[in-house]
Amino acid sequence: MAHGNAPADDLPPALSEYLRNDPLAAHLGIAIDEIRLGYARARMTVRAETLNAHGVAHGGATMSLADTVFAAASNSHGRQSLAVDLHTEFLSAGALGEVLVAVAEELHLTRRMAVYRVSVVVESDGRRVAEVLARVYRRDDPLP
Amino acid sequence: MAHGNAPADDLPPALSEYLRNDPLAAHLGIAIDEIRLGYARARMTVRAETLNAHGVAHGGATMSLADTVFAAASNSHGRQSLAVDLHTEFLSAGALGEVLVAVAEELHLTRRMAVYRVSVVVESDGRRVAEVLARVYRRDDPLP
Amino acid sequence: MAHGNAPADDLPPALSEYLRNDPLAAHLGIAIDEIRLGYARARMTVRAETLNAHGVAHGGATMSLADTVFAAASNSHGRQSLAVDLHTEFLSAGALGEVLVAVAEELHLTRRMAVYRVSVVVESDGRRVAEVLARVYRRDDPLP
Amino acid sequence: MAHGNAPADDLPPALSEYLRNDPLAAHLGIAIDEIRLGYARARMTVRAETLNAHGVAHGGATMSLADTVFAAASNSHGRQSLAVDLHTEFLSAGALGEVLVAVAEELHLTRRMAVYRVSVVVESDGRRVAEVLARVYRRDDPLP
Repeated sequence: MAHGNAPADDLPPALSEYLRNDPLAAHLGIAIDEIRLGYARARMTVRAETLNAHGVAHGGATMSLADTVFAAASNSHGRQSLAVDLHTEFLSAGALGEVLVAVAEELHLTRRMAVYRVSVVVESDGRRVAEVLARVYRRDDPLP
Repeated sequence: MAHGNAPADDLPPALSEYLRNDPLAAHLGIAIDEIRLGYARARMTVRAETLNAHGVAHGGATMSLADTVFAAASNSHGRQSLAVDLHTEFLSAGALGEVLVAVAEELHLTRRMAVYRVSVVVESDGRRVAEVLARVYRRDDPLP
Repeated sequence: MAHGNAPADDLPPALSEYLRNDPLAAHLGIAIDEIRLGYARARMTVRAETLNAHGVAHGGATMSLADTVFAAASNSHGRQSLAVDLHTEFLSAGALGEVLVAVAEELHLTRRMAVYRVSVVVESDGRRVAEVLARVYRRDDPLP
Repeated sequence: MAHGNAPADDLPPALSEYLRNDPLAAHLGIAIDEIRLGYARARMTVRAETLNAHGVAHGGATMSLADTVFAAASNSHGRQSLAVDLHTEFLSAGALGEVLVAVAEELHLTRRMAVYRVSVVVESDGRRVAEVLARVYRRDDPLP
């Protein structure tokens, strides 16, 4: 099971396992805490290898965290869903050692498209780190 | 020197060295090929640890590559520049083993703000992978 | 007073009057219903002159409605605030005669920047029309 | 014929006429100068009724101009194309009496999706006003 946390998912176990097998998330220390229909939540501790040249959390790491919950939430319906756009507003930078929490929520779902809002905050004090809007194209292909 | 490539930068060496010391870029295998005033170019090979659950390049890895050249180009003027927003349109997904090339170009520069266009393509065949628009806020703080 | 509706604003009257004097909003039939600190709400009926070639509400009209509440909310602090970016996800198109309602809420406020979420829905049935994230740069210049 | 300018389009005349019949564009004084496959260009003079509360071109007017060329370019293939997202970076504001020129160019075209870059500049001096990335979903429905 990914990242040592017991899944609190309400998905079929094979789908949950498929979505949790996310190599980049593992490489960045992202723990997927929960996947439900149209919803996902994950955490990432800002580590030395996820900093940028200025010594704060790299925007790429923050966006990777956001993209991970976006992917989990949008694929939770069991159909292959491909990101088509992702817009990030950066609100503050995570500092070394801080735990960032990202939550993805479904705003809109049609046969071919779905749109999600992702909020990233610092776990300890609730400070907003980034706000994201993102969309998928939904293929007919079923996932495991 | 970062990533084993000789810098083709036209920046002061101390600034070039500061900008090339990007821990997340190193962790993802991103090589910064060139930094000039308002411009940067980098490469990333899609590796096993930068894939997503579907087995193609993770959107977070592609955005990390884009963010890396955006940061290098925007900080090339020697003033601390902080990302305020970054918009990505995904055009196709990189496959395992493909080399992605990202180029950042300055569209607009004022005292407090600057805007960049970033294009990510596959090196071998020029296929478009992502197109990005992004903005920084420019602080007064000088970089090394 | 603009648009014939009694202001439900909690702003100084001179500031409220200044913000409600929005020529494009008047030209498109946008009624600003309420402006409070960091918040604004407005309505627009989809009319023949705000349609596109396909005969539904023009994306430009929907974005003008969103931009109007974004401007009112961001300038409500009494400092001149200039839009720097605005991202729109279109969720469904307004139809001729439908009333669209837009609400802007402040997500983040610093000395130089602020970020807003704007939601546009159909008044009669709550159908989502568009979701927006947008940012201003805040100048020192005071408004009336 | 729309706006009194002779079409320089390379489209079938019925399609050209359909796309040029854009009520909001007419209401804002937008002249569509040219529509070719995957490309469109239009002009708008900043008039009293397209200003905002600060007395410069309303962001909604600038985005309406951008959306108009985006719609013309994306529908130029003769299939109904619906905007799914539109991202605007504002670079400077148009002033009363200035002529703004917008050009839309196709970056990416697949069976179901297409992505466009739109640049808006001041005609007299080339000053950049806005830069846009936008995407459509392409339906099977043919246009006239």
